[in-house]
Amino acid sequence: MTDKATAATAATETQCPLCQLPLPGELVRSDQWVIIDANEPMFPGFTRVVWIEHVREMTDLSTRQRQDLMDVVFEVEQIMRTSLNPHKVNLASLGNQAPHVHWHVIPRWSDDVAYPGPVWVGGQDTEAAQHRRAQTQRALADYHGALIQRFTA
Amino acid sequence: MTDKATAATAATETQCPLCQLPLPGELVRSDQWVIIDANEPMFPGFTRVVWIEHVREMTDLSTRQRQDLMDVVFEVEQIMRTSLNPHKVNLASLGNQAPHVHWHVIPRWSDDVAYPGPVWVGGQDTEAAQHRRAQTQRALADYHGALIQRFTA
Repeated sequence: MTDKATAATAATETQCPLCQLPLPGELVRSDQWVIIDANEPMFPGFTRVVWIEHVREMTDLSTRQRQDLMDVVFEVEQIMRTSLNPHKVNLASLGNQAPHVHWHVIPRWSDDVAYPGPVWVGGQDTEAAQHRRAQTQRALADYHGALIQRFTA
Repeated sequence: MTDKATAATAATETQCPLCQLPLPGELVRSDQWVIIDANEPMFPGFTRVVWIEHVREMTDLSTRQRQDLMDVVFEVEQIMRTSLNPHKVNLASLGNQAPHVHWHVIPRWSDDVAYPGPVWVGGQDTEAAQHRRAQTQRALADYHGALIQRFTA
């Protein structure tokens, strides 16, 4: 079996990095989901919402669970927009590497290293991108504070 | 103004490719959304759900509109799983190039050209990937038929 096939088919709860609680960068955890700071150095503010149960696809969740999860994803987007004021927000649930439902919520700026490509494509670092990252880094404590306040109230 | 800044800030309804109805590859259209065959040769089955109104972010929609759109996205995922049996489904709302709300619903297989990377990263074509694409192509008529039937019933 190739590595690709293993990644696609064989991840179980004991092997799955998203099943190992607490997750690195945890900001808030409910009994259903965890919000984490993805700690991606080139993309400060990159946030993930991880469903706690080891479920592969969104359509493996119940309608109610899906709605609960999306409500959290969209609240994270809203708080991100208010706190960080990105030019665009990217949302993605891929799960090719870790087939365990999780959402990427990514603030994007027209001067970030990958724009207008997806963050996974990478790009050329620039002075403007460095300046943007530094500015975003300074706003992270407020952003994370707002997330924690919203979801622990 | 750089091309990047233009893409990020200046797309209006008259410039926006997703505002020009009918969209290429339309399969079904309601008064709120359009489902299209993305017609990506390396990723047959790649489907998009486009919100008709020129809205930038998911959190610019009302709660009800968001829920309506996500219900369609997840129904597309379910029909895709039933018809095409992918190893994984990727969902993404990026909008860096066209800041007009649309969802990518992408069937993935462990032997496709980009796996386990995101489709935007690309990869090496192989005989297995070619075989997989041919097999998926043969199932597309049934998949599209099931989508049309579900959403026009």
